Amino acid sequence: MKSVGKTRWAIPDGYIPGESRGPAPEMTSHEACCILNAGGEEAHIKITIFFEDRDPAGPFRFTIGPRRTTHLRFNSFNEPENVPRDTPYSSLIESDAPIVVQHRRLDSRQEANALLSTVAFPYD
Amino acid sequence: MKSVGKTRWAIPDGYIPGESRGPAPEMTSHEACCILNAGGEEAHIKITIFFEDRDPAGPFRFTIGPRRTTHLRFNSFNEPENVPRDTPYSSLIESDAPIVVQHRRLDSRQEANALLSTVAFPYD
Amino acid sequence: MKSVGKTRWAIPDGYIPGESRGPAPEMTSHEACCILNAGGEEAHIKITIFFEDRDPAGPFRFTIGPRRTTHLRFNSFNEPENVPRDTPYSSLIESDAPIVVQHRRLDSRQEANALLSTVAFPYD
Amino acid sequence: MKSVGKTRWAIPDGYIPGESRGPAPEMTSHEACCILNAGGEEAHIKITIFFEDRDPAGPFRFTIGPRRTTHLRFNSFNEPENVPRDTPYSSLIESDAPIVVQHRRLDSRQEANALLSTVAFPYD
Repeated sequence: MKSVGKTRWAIPDGYIPGESRGPAPEMTSHEACCILNAGGEEAHIKITIFFEDRDPAGPFRFTIGPRRTTHLRFNSFNEPENVPRDTPYSSLIESDAPIVVQHRRLDSRQEANALLSTVAFPYD
Repeated sequence: MKSVGKTRWAIPDGYIPGESRGPAPEMTSHEACCILNAGGEEAHIKITIFFEDRDPAGPFRFTIGPRRTTHLRFNSFNEPENVPRDTPYSSLIESDAPIVVQHRRLDSRQEANALLSTVAFPYD
Repeated sequence: MKSVGKTRWAIPDGYIPGESRGPAPEMTSHEACCILNAGGEEAHIKITIFFEDRDPAGPFRFTIGPRRTTHLRFNSFNEPENVPRDTPYSSLIESDAPIVVQHRRLDSRQEANALLSTVAFPYD
Repeated sequence: MKSVGKTRWAIPDGYIPGESRGPAPEMTSHEACCILNAGGEEAHIKITIFFEDRDPAGPFRFTIGPRRTTHLRFNSFNEPENVPRDTPYSSLIESDAPIVVQHRRLDSRQEANALLSTVAFPYD
């Protein structure tokens, strides 16, 4: 299986709703970047978070094995810091191997959850 | 009608919710890849599923007639195996003729359904 | 204002839910292709609909004035035929001037509406 | 950090629902363009709004600092005019520095909110 994708991706619309309804963790309001590493080598991922009124946070670092996917919740990021709730942000995802990135949000602040998703913006 | 699209597509965000509310099959929680084959020849499709913690599954094989669409539910895949519920995955769709692929999820775990969709990521 | 976009677009995931809750027309379950013609000339649009088990329908024809947008509901197509409800389809949108196309579905079959959207797939 | 993205983006599907349920401002029905300026220079943004039956509105002007994001609600635009509710529109976003743009709508007209999002269409 050859590698697939690009090494850099951007997600402008970041926002983790601060409240949730329903059982955790599956119905917890969250935001995720879903990353596919279809190639034969480990991918080393570096994520930078941008804000409206302060300098960027990160890098947040992750490793994805060859021929594996990972669905990272921004809610769970904690090193070097947490991602704040109810706060607009954007993210850049950089990798040393080609990957494909899709953005998803689950919002369960009201009685029934809402979802949004898009393939992220690839660049070189 | 000339053929339209690319022969390879990726969908990083795969997830079939394990519960549903409302009449089946239309309101059943599901995930689909919607494939358009606008050209004059049959398209032979091969889908590979990637997981977080095991080797990929597949290939799952499908045929789409010329000038036809098909909306495949991952829920219904059963050869060579089923796609597990409540489990993160990604997929690659490969075809011997140009196609266009769009991803959709319907999530009816709570009182009112949620939807997400994106055109998949094309590559050569 | 120069023209913007491409002259051909594909939307693989077509589906008009057959039921609705809430006031018409704004909460009626529908599917739309939203088309921007930013250029200085009229755009003449030709839409073809593809099905799973029959030959394509169309062309459906529309005109968009210069520097105008139009949000076409597939529900309202009636010449040369209607688009059936509760039926999977795909569409191709062709124009004689550059346009940009975005796909949207509003699904109000259950108590609270769901939405999905994506920029369509452009090709030449 | 080098700059990322394109200088021109289009969002065909614009619509601000005229009613809302839940606490303001977070659950207010709105439409946003989320813009990432990852580069080291200020980005000066110019947005034009297109309608179905009148000439375009704008330009609406905004500035984004270096290495910052901004999530602009179309609801809040007021100079040179407001964006009408319950009215189909499209938008073009132009910048003097590379940016990445994602479109989002939150619709809380019914009991539980709905969301849609897509990366906007980039062009040069």
